[in-house]
Amino acid sequence: MDTLHFETAEQLRLACRRGQFSAPTSGLAEGYQQGNIVILPSALADDFLRYCVRNPKPAPILGISEVGDPRLPSLGADLDIRFDAPRYRVFRNGEAVDTVTDIEALWRDDFVTFVLGCSFSFETALLRADIPVRHIEAGRNVAMYETNIETAPSGPFSGPMVVSMRSFTPQDAIRAIILSSHLPQAHGAPVHIGDPSQIGISDLAKPDFGDAPVIHPGDVTVFWACGVTPQTAIRHARPEIAITHAPGHMLVTDLRTEIA
Amino acid sequence: MDTLHFETAEQLRLACRRGQFSAPTSGLAEGYQQGNIVILPSALADDFLRYCVRNPKPAPILGISEVGDPRLPSLGADLDIRFDAPRYRVFRNGEAVDTVTDIEALWRDDFVTFVLGCSFSFETALLRADIPVRHIEAGRNVAMYETNIETAPSGPFSGPMVVSMRSFTPQDAIRAIILSSHLPQAHGAPVHIGDPSQIGISDLAKPDFGDAPVIHPGDVTVFWACGVTPQTAIRHARPEIAITHAPGHMLVTDLRTEIA
Repeated sequence: MDTLHFETAEQLRLACRRGQFSAPTSGLAEGYQQGNIVILPSALADDFLRYCVRNPKPAPILGISEVGDPRLPSLGADLDIRFDAPRYRVFRNGEAVDTVTDIEALWRDDFVTFVLGCSFSFETALLRADIPVRHIEAGRNVAMYETNIETAPSGPFSGPMVVSMRSFTPQDAIRAIILSSHLPQAHGAPVHIGDPSQIGISDLAKPDFGDAPVIHPGDVTVFWACGVTPQTAIRHARPEIAITHAPGHMLVTDLRTEIA
Repeated sequence: MDTLHFETAEQLRLACRRGQFSAPTSGLAEGYQQGNIVILPSALADDFLRYCVRNPKPAPILGISEVGDPRLPSLGADLDIRFDAPRYRVFRNGEAVDTVTDIEALWRDDFVTFVLGCSFSFETALLRADIPVRHIEAGRNVAMYETNIETAPSGPFSGPMVVSMRSFTPQDAIRAIILSSHLPQAHGAPVHIGDPSQIGISDLAKPDFGDAPVIHPGDVTVFWACGVTPQTAIRHARPEIAITHAPGHMLVTDLRTEIA
């Protein structure tokens, strides 16, 4: 696939819809907020909505659809969730069973779509502030860890908070903490700094998701709530069917990445 | 002296003026911004003003008087700097030589008064946010350290940045960092977190000023620029005469402690 440049979120979504784009969205359509997708049968939607509201740091809600309606007009006038993300993951009974580039054939009249904030917006803000992001510099995925912090449960949705870790010089760590506190829709302020064992992480070099981190001598480790948390809650809930974006293949919305 | 309660900054200043109050001001006239005082001959005022502007974290300017004028109407309609702080320190050639309760006899027509932000406002904000402040709980003065961070010099004013250290649980450290970033007139965001040796502090248990700190297991150490820094710069500059507040005996202004 060519390296494509998208001026707007809508251009990127249209390329997905036409089958012209199915790659990761990191760094694309800069300034537009990207989102995690969770699609569930309506029978589970109320419990999942409460789960998100009770756990706003890992699951900040950017938008919710009407039952059976594939549109999310608050996130994009013509947005159609069946086609507009580059790649989707299908879960049956809590297990990922398939990856597809559209979900037209799977769509059901009782589906409800949730779009949840994503750390890509936050990383863009860090880079704009000239704060180096070690895993991006190294061309790696961010390191993510299951913690001993339990999320607030709702119905069948529960489980540990998953965090992403980024390390910085102490001065950049201070700036990153303050900056992220102004981006509540991209997981907000960190949930922990310093000693990983305090939140149940035994070995930083062995993340549960993503790649091993790059940590420079003298760095301070900073841990943010991660959008993988609701996916872990879905695995725990074992719904008959659930559809999410494929990791890194986010929905790009018309929302601008704004300071709150 | 009785434990006095002052509803307003003006009541406290009037008590100082009448000789009824000459004690430390920590925790008094809550909600009003307290300030460090620096009074210098006008020949040095321009260099000192530039020093403060170049070093806004240790020396945030709350107010400057006209030459020879003991009033600071922007900080209090009737404020008279000769009488309205509880206790003053007199420096000659950079050495503290006397402590007095008013400076009427010392006043000169060429004096310029600087009032600089103070961390008391910040500590009040921490306590209001239910963030424990270890040295206050222990009834101690905050621990302060000379660092290897050089301030930006101006004329004869120069020297190391002095920092105050407070330690917190990691979660409270994150909240304290964010909260302080909204109080730029009380030294703003911290200048360092974590390993003290990175800023030239060899032993936390042996502060250069104040009392030994209380650090709980698992705490994160957080370092803020300190209002003692300009006093250190004055010691370096060795002016013929300089007058400051006595440590802890601050000028209480009519400014409210507001989030910026």
